[in-house]
Amino acid sequence: MVVASRANYARIKTAMRAIDDHPDLELQVVAGASLVLERFGNAIDVLEADGFRPDAIVRMIIEGETPTTMAKSTGLGLLELPTVFENLQPDAVVTIADRFETLATAVAAAYMNLPLIHTQGGEVSGSIDESVRHAVTKLAHVHFPATELSRRRVIAMGEDAAHVHNVGCPSIDLVAQADLGDPRSALAELNARGVGAEIDPDKPYLLMMQHPVTTEYGESLDQINETLEGVARLGMQALVFWPNVDAGSDHVAKGMRVFRDRGEAKGFHFFRNLPPELFAKLLAHTACMVGNSSSGLREGAFLGTPVVTVGTRQQNREHARNVLRTGHGADEIADAIREQVRNGRYERDELFGDGTAGLQIAEQLALPLPPAQKQLSYAVEDLLAEVSE
Amino acid sequence: MVVASRANYARIKTAMRAIDDHPDLELQVVAGASLVLERFGNAIDVLEADGFRPDAIVRMIIEGETPTTMAKSTGLGLLELPTVFENLQPDAVVTIADRFETLATAVAAAYMNLPLIHTQGGEVSGSIDESVRHAVTKLAHVHFPATELSRRRVIAMGEDAAHVHNVGCPSIDLVAQADLGDPRSALAELNARGVGAEIDPDKPYLLMMQHPVTTEYGESLDQINETLEGVARLGMQALVFWPNVDAGSDHVAKGMRVFRDRGEAKGFHFFRNLPPELFAKLLAHTACMVGNSSSGLREGAFLGTPVVTVGTRQQNREHARNVLRTGHGADEIADAIREQVRNGRYERDELFGDGTAGLQIAEQLALPLPPAQKQLSYAVEDLLAEVSE
Amino acid sequence: MVVASRANYARIKTAMRAIDDHPDLELQVVAGASLVLERFGNAIDVLEADGFRPDAIVRMIIEGETPTTMAKSTGLGLLELPTVFENLQPDAVVTIADRFETLATAVAAAYMNLPLIHTQGGEVSGSIDESVRHAVTKLAHVHFPATELSRRRVIAMGEDAAHVHNVGCPSIDLVAQADLGDPRSALAELNARGVGAEIDPDKPYLLMMQHPVTTEYGESLDQINETLEGVARLGMQALVFWPNVDAGSDHVAKGMRVFRDRGEAKGFHFFRNLPPELFAKLLAHTACMVGNSSSGLREGAFLGTPVVTVGTRQQNREHARNVLRTGHGADEIADAIREQVRNGRYERDELFGDGTAGLQIAEQLALPLPPAQKQLSYAVEDLLAEVSE
Amino acid sequence: MVVASRANYARIKTAMRAIDDHPDLELQVVAGASLVLERFGNAIDVLEADGFRPDAIVRMIIEGETPTTMAKSTGLGLLELPTVFENLQPDAVVTIADRFETLATAVAAAYMNLPLIHTQGGEVSGSIDESVRHAVTKLAHVHFPATELSRRRVIAMGEDAAHVHNVGCPSIDLVAQADLGDPRSALAELNARGVGAEIDPDKPYLLMMQHPVTTEYGESLDQINETLEGVARLGMQALVFWPNVDAGSDHVAKGMRVFRDRGEAKGFHFFRNLPPELFAKLLAHTACMVGNSSSGLREGAFLGTPVVTVGTRQQNREHARNVLRTGHGADEIADAIREQVRNGRYERDELFGDGTAGLQIAEQLALPLPPAQKQLSYAVEDLLAEVSE
Repeated sequence: MVVASRANYARIKTAMRAIDDHPDLELQVVAGASLVLERFGNAIDVLEADGFRPDAIVRMIIEGETPTTMAKSTGLGLLELPTVFENLQPDAVVTIADRFETLATAVAAAYMNLPLIHTQGGEVSGSIDESVRHAVTKLAHVHFPATELSRRRVIAMGEDAAHVHNVGCPSIDLVAQADLGDPRSALAELNARGVGAEIDPDKPYLLMMQHPVTTEYGESLDQINETLEGVARLGMQALVFWPNVDAGSDHVAKGMRVFRDRGEAKGFHFFRNLPPELFAKLLAHTACMVGNSSSGLREGAFLGTPVVTVGTRQQNREHARNVLRTGHGADEIADAIREQVRNGRYERDELFGDGTAGLQIAEQLALPLPPAQKQLSYAVEDLLAEVSE
Repeated sequence: MVVASRANYARIKTAMRAIDDHPDLELQVVAGASLVLERFGNAIDVLEADGFRPDAIVRMIIEGETPTTMAKSTGLGLLELPTVFENLQPDAVVTIADRFETLATAVAAAYMNLPLIHTQGGEVSGSIDESVRHAVTKLAHVHFPATELSRRRVIAMGEDAAHVHNVGCPSIDLVAQADLGDPRSALAELNARGVGAEIDPDKPYLLMMQHPVTTEYGESLDQINETLEGVARLGMQALVFWPNVDAGSDHVAKGMRVFRDRGEAKGFHFFRNLPPELFAKLLAHTACMVGNSSSGLREGAFLGTPVVTVGTRQQNREHARNVLRTGHGADEIADAIREQVRNGRYERDELFGDGTAGLQIAEQLALPLPPAQKQLSYAVEDLLAEVSE
Repeated sequence: MVVASRANYARIKTAMRAIDDHPDLELQVVAGASLVLERFGNAIDVLEADGFRPDAIVRMIIEGETPTTMAKSTGLGLLELPTVFENLQPDAVVTIADRFETLATAVAAAYMNLPLIHTQGGEVSGSIDESVRHAVTKLAHVHFPATELSRRRVIAMGEDAAHVHNVGCPSIDLVAQADLGDPRSALAELNARGVGAEIDPDKPYLLMMQHPVTTEYGESLDQINETLEGVARLGMQALVFWPNVDAGSDHVAKGMRVFRDRGEAKGFHFFRNLPPELFAKLLAHTACMVGNSSSGLREGAFLGTPVVTVGTRQQNREHARNVLRTGHGADEIADAIREQVRNGRYERDELFGDGTAGLQIAEQLALPLPPAQKQLSYAVEDLLAEVSE
Repeated sequence: MVVASRANYARIKTAMRAIDDHPDLELQVVAGASLVLERFGNAIDVLEADGFRPDAIVRMIIEGETPTTMAKSTGLGLLELPTVFENLQPDAVVTIADRFETLATAVAAAYMNLPLIHTQGGEVSGSIDESVRHAVTKLAHVHFPATELSRRRVIAMGEDAAHVHNVGCPSIDLVAQADLGDPRSALAELNARGVGAEIDPDKPYLLMMQHPVTTEYGESLDQINETLEGVARLGMQALVFWPNVDAGSDHVAKGMRVFRDRGEAKGFHFFRNLPPELFAKLLAHTACMVGNSSSGLREGAFLGTPVVTVGTRQQNREHARNVLRTGHGADEIADAIREQVRNGRYERDELFGDGTAGLQIAEQLALPLPPAQKQLSYAVEDLLAEVSE
């Protein structure tokens, strides 16, 4: 189980808990990448507060946050992880979703003949994540996609249907289990965290989370400026998150700092990260979530949160009715937010799971694992004739 | 163009030549991995003798040849290659086939938003190469599979059919262009290369080339012993090649050394590597090729060479009528060789190309390249309904 | 010439200029470590604005800033630099002073049989810099210590006196050449840089620069707090610099941020870095410089700047009369600052050079270099009998 | 305790045993570099057969054996060792002598504030080892030089005399404890090891061990050829060792292989490595040892072995009367061997210790260790005035 970021953690936590609780399974945790960096809020503390002690820590992020350092950091991870796996001798390795460092985990495990378990394969999005996700699928032995469509895509790519299980996304489990009641005391407490304007717990608020798009490196600064301006036009209070470690993060962070230093971030409160349960409560009650984080599509669907998705980062990702797309202009962003605020909450949609993903994953992992040697499955071989025009 | 082994070179040489000759293309060569190691015959000398000067050299092989060092060497390559790409600023990166270090090239290029060109995707084989090949496919932007079936498989995995071209394998070009006439003077000259018994140019000879199977690490020593013994039983002279750098190579090499030191390698002559044209001539005239190298399947099909393929390394790879499969026992190997020697040469089969692969690749690369942002193609989306049972 | 931080650059710039101008010498520049990081003000921009174009960029800082990542970053530098040296083929390599990554440059050059030139050897300080500096001396072939006492120490350590030259410190050249006149317009312009309180150009100001002490990792946060509080007690305006990349920097930076967010940084203006000439002007006119940067001892001696040095980082470093030492308590720090402010400017002291270091370095490098093979010098052999008690 | 080669092991084994046996000390063993490579005889097996189980294995040798890969391998070691130290949490780190990878251990320990213990400092030799050894001295906290002259040199370099202890070399302990009686049965058994001519246990034999000189990279092939030829002229049987991993090893090994394949190695038997006790017995009874290994100078002095030292590798190393130096010509080498064979055994000389080094090291390490913060010692400060001319 290699956990590499706060986002990773939210999407695997209930599976970790279920594995840890399962009589036939033993959990080992490797904490790496931005999870162990102070600059990203040391999300590892949240993990430890939840009772998970990392069996190894992997420091692999080379400073710079350019496409070059993103590749080199993956290389560094791939130098470090084999030693970790040699020491821990796991029976299988779990890797999560599609961040760039995921591929280091996947290659290390596959090359060392360790069965690789992959969650959230088969999704279609944009950014380099798109390629990373499918490459990991081709290295993985057991797949836990989060939707029915994703399950079918993983099989279509040639994976053996017997080892592809649509269990939903563990992040939905968190939301399903969380206390989502009145957020006012939570909001009041937030004033002691992060920096920026005082939050008024009695007023509606926007949530904003925008990450750089690595394939549009160089445009990140403009993009964050437009979104910040669009949000500011609403004149509402806003809870704003710093971006993930990725090529372009420096530009996003800089845009946010400059915007704030210019005094334009009126009513904006800035956070590095929050515990997943607290985040779920904020998501359940926000007037609208804005940006390009997938949590709006995923947990947002289950919670019926009104979401405005900006730009290409989630462009082809499946979503429910709660999501409205826009381009990068401040005007269109502001318009979309207004429409969503006016609409209010949507109906629950179980597109990304019903809240039992973690338990299903643990149960599957307790069954015998497939052999190290993979093969393109026959299901696809049967389709080949039809592909040919 | 990242070339990492003598095998790589044979499978890309005519494309390199065609790119170099094309008025609209400029060729840059990165030489890496075993290509630059004395222990593997410094195949880079062959490349330079052909007039290709490497623009950069990447030293990335960590000693040990275990699954752990195979993963770590890939990591080291992934630390080195981004710097190389940053210096050379290529418009596109070509990576070849499926050896473990190929994935370092693929990840570096994809993360740095450089269009990735992949040759020989879509094949089905065995070993870790199987997973590496398909993972590279999911990172690549333009594909040059070597057979029609492979082309269809790449498309079925979700790649855009507009960028998947069955051009055949450039190694066939070499064979098609080579002077394959009387091998006697070539054989006579071989006595000055390599070590072992004197070669008699007037007698028939076997060719043997057996690499370790990384997913069967630990069994490599037994496997090579059985094959050596099987070959020895024929009592014919044999040209035997040392293995590639891979987890298990040390065991294969050791088995060969011990066999030779015990005096059992009667009539065996050992080589590290040979120029591709010379190898083609030997393949065209051998009484039978034995082992698990794919050249028997590939160039062998075009040349009609009788081939005995041992074990799982090529187990699901497409092949023509010239190939006979066996397990790992010395007896069954000896029987199969006898049968093939008796049969003699087969008819030419253009399964792996007609000898124009290099030219076709250069022509395609001179056309506009697809954008860095990849997407699962619509062709597959249409198939999804049918996959669902 | 490997330049790795803004401090590095200030201490070598005039030598770079003199080498570039010398008819028999060619300058190559490798920019690495914190010099190329946005988080540290991208000091490389200053270097390029001065007309120096880096021939290679080395990204080597692994995030974390713990003793572990400091060691690993040096390892990463040592993986990267040999490739750079192989590409650039320099006749000699210059490395500067004593930051941790300096050792990567020194080891790479020494192992590759490139004559290593080292500036500022033989100084005695504290922190891990102490060991790094002397280890580099033992790998270097030509030494440019900055004081007479340092010259004698380098020789005592067994270096050949013929290759040890006291030229003074190039940072003094900068100060000697700088326009140090009225700082008011410079101060006024500073309001557009950095963040924090408005600077009043007509009032006296303090300069504060405090780096973590790597061998006291864990105490950095307390230490910065005491100094911030000590400075605040003076009630004067203060120009405060963020720390270098080092184990503990995160703690220092955090202390500074928290202090500022608590509203205690009244009259404090924060900077990442400034061009060396501007910094010289500020140093020439400050009421007192506080912290543990060596620039107070070095340029401060030449300029007669009143300096308060806190803690152990400079504890045994040579200094002139302008320096007053204190421990880490806010009270004693405040007292020492008051005493220095009262005293005012000191007389010029040429302890660290007379402003011609850069020219002297270039002239020496144009002479024949010593061979790669080093040897403990005979001068020390003669002393050995006396050492024995 | 980081052990990185078979030579390392022989020079620390008795100290390992004494530490392991000491009631107040706990031994941890890190096995790295060539110690864990099959190509170098997997010396780790000898270590394990002696009852030492490695707590961690570090794979750090990048293939190539050029000065570039030697530097890069050190960098890789410096990426790996901090993780190992973080996991093992040692109270102190012991590093041995002067091979290139030693510096990785030294830097990792020093940067991580772990007291560094260094054996065999203060010696004067040649090759890059010379610089490595003194650089490690400047990073180390406790020193165990092997001779009185070395002790004084370490102190002269500025180390605190209280932490510099002349204990002799642990390799002498092995020799002092070994059964050195009649070698005939040992010689007879050697025929089952290594390759080459049959050894006749009743006849006198030469020992040959020649390593590449890294600062003379490029001349290694010529040098080994001359020595092989010089040895062959004696017409005696010879036990010949393959070289260490170093820049140039490939050339030395190639020279040896070609010499053997040409049939000139008459009476030569080739080994990769031997258990230290067996080697001691061979050294005690050889007619003459030839080459540039330091064991001839060291154990040879204690045993009175006639030794011929070739070239610069040991050129300034202390030695007793048993050593005769020559240049690289086959003629002068043959002459020197003849003279030494004629002379026969020398008197015992305890220059490198009396056989109690291991015990003395363990006893010192059980005492309180010096603090992480080092300082140039006052002993040297007192000498400085005299150094100044």
